Amino acid sequence: MKLTILGCHSATPRTNTNPTSQVLEIKNRMFLIDCGEGTQVELRRNKIKFSRIKHIFISHLHGDHCFGLVGLISTFRLLGRDTDLHIYAPKGLKEVITLQLKLSDSWTNYNLYFHELTSKDSELIYEDDKVEVHTIPLDHRVYTNGFLFKEKIGERKLDMNAVLNHNIDVAYYRKLKQGFDVEDNNGNLIKNETVTKPPLKPKSYAFCSDTAYNESILPIIKNVDVLYHESTFLEKNEQLTEPTKHSTAKQAASIAKQANAGTLILGHYSTRYDDLSLFKQEASEIYSETIKLAKDGKQFNFE
Amino acid sequence: MKLTILGCHSATPRTNTNPTSQVLEIKNRMFLIDCGEGTQVELRRNKIKFSRIKHIFISHLHGDHCFGLVGLISTFRLLGRDTDLHIYAPKGLKEVITLQLKLSDSWTNYNLYFHELTSKDSELIYEDDKVEVHTIPLDHRVYTNGFLFKEKIGERKLDMNAVLNHNIDVAYYRKLKQGFDVEDNNGNLIKNETVTKPPLKPKSYAFCSDTAYNESILPIIKNVDVLYHESTFLEKNEQLTEPTKHSTAKQAASIAKQANAGTLILGHYSTRYDDLSLFKQEASEIYSETIKLAKDGKQFNFE
Repeated sequence: MKLTILGCHSATPRTNTNPTSQVLEIKNRMFLIDCGEGTQVELRRNKIKFSRIKHIFISHLHGDHCFGLVGLISTFRLLGRDTDLHIYAPKGLKEVITLQLKLSDSWTNYNLYFHELTSKDSELIYEDDKVEVHTIPLDHRVYTNGFLFKEKIGERKLDMNAVLNHNIDVAYYRKLKQGFDVEDNNGNLIKNETVTKPPLKPKSYAFCSDTAYNESILPIIKNVDVLYHESTFLEKNEQLTEPTKHSTAKQAASIAKQANAGTLILGHYSTRYDDLSLFKQEASEIYSETIKLAKDGKQFNFE
Repeated sequence: MKLTILGCHSATPRTNTNPTSQVLEIKNRMFLIDCGEGTQVELRRNKIKFSRIKHIFISHLHGDHCFGLVGLISTFRLLGRDTDLHIYAPKGLKEVITLQLKLSDSWTNYNLYFHELTSKDSELIYEDDKVEVHTIPLDHRVYTNGFLFKEKIGERKLDMNAVLNHNIDVAYYRKLKQGFDVEDNNGNLIKNETVTKPPLKPKSYAFCSDTAYNESILPIIKNVDVLYHESTFLEKNEQLTEPTKHSTAKQAASIAKQANAGTLILGHYSTRYDDLSLFKQEASEIYSETIKLAKDGKQFNFE
């Protein structure tokens, strides 16, 4: 599981800071999360192959999370894309994008599917044989979802020494990986556990931005391996969190702690702060596990 | 008159090239022309004060000319702008921007005026005491206008030596600048020309992008001082100009020559070319006056 931060700053794009966008690579799938203005350029800068992006998740319709989407969709067309593109976003975005493409008298030469989100409860919105994605209803000024990406539990691993010692025919390997007991070449039943190892623990990633401090998300993100939680403000500006529906670094840390998360990644910093290390410092007063600061262009590997 | 190129490349924004946008400073007014994705960042990079932009002209609704507008409008709001903003653009953009602002549950805290363009004839769309702006109907795949910015003829300049020698009261200076004859302190009529000099020749700038070769614009841009004309292609790709409704450098040069323009600026280069000097070379085979190549971040002074 690998996370590339394309942008992690709040509000407007600037010469050295980008609005929210990130790429999660999980089980060889590549998911784009949010798409602020300039995202397509950051994808290029980070050498991410456009054609590998097949699913885009948009948290909410504030500009710093979605104004780059129509440009990316248009560029896909100019690059001759022919694979399907799926967009999971609050209801309304489809109307905007459709209108924009209509006005520019262009359409995509690939299939563009909008999955419009309206539910205030957590939903399974994507699933394949290895990964599933659930929404995380957040508390922001407009309808907003975070996203929980979960690897499915994989197959058991063959303990090849034990398999060979037990003289098991290769035809049974598939069954073994699926957890079944099998017979050896002499007709003896071999218990699965004696020749296989448990699958790797499935990894999970929760993206929670933008949101006020919101304990109701805890059951959804319980025990998540990596939590990206917005921390727009430092403690001294805590009074701004209520009107803006954002969080402080301490509040993000408190959510991480109560969720028993693994790594906490902070981001969505207000541009009023020069020294971002203070975010980590304040969060570490609450949360004793690993805390990382998101940074544009930074890649996190979780293996 | 000063022109700053924020972006001058066709199609998609890339790490080192920006889509179309430029700032024309004329008679102390600042006009933004086109607004591709990333324009607000380029404004910052070029240290252009956001508050000085009060009028934005959009040529057409292809993304590389307008996808940066909604972000700029939003940023104006975040920066606390309170001065009016006027947008001159093809009909349709107002609907998109309005929808986007509605979906993000935000509106501007300044007055936003859309002047929707639909006419296929050249129109006067802006006028104040010193400058006027006319549309230049262009020939592109969608409804497109170029823009002609013209200084109005200024006041006559006082020849202070002559004025003092003729013993003219200061109360008459205003009348002199306006071209009237006045009396000196002895009651003698002083012919205006003997104590004033003619006003500076008014300058003009024509922005013509995107467009196929189109002689019908010649009467509108006749004798323009500076002509920015798109040159998407080099001669070897001339066959692409008809389906795409773009121009070659030679075609741009031909328009400049027939219009008796002053300086010709080329831009809107297709990304297929590495060596941009070829554009100038091909244009110079047709046009013997000054030819400049637009470049992102380049400033042209026309004094």
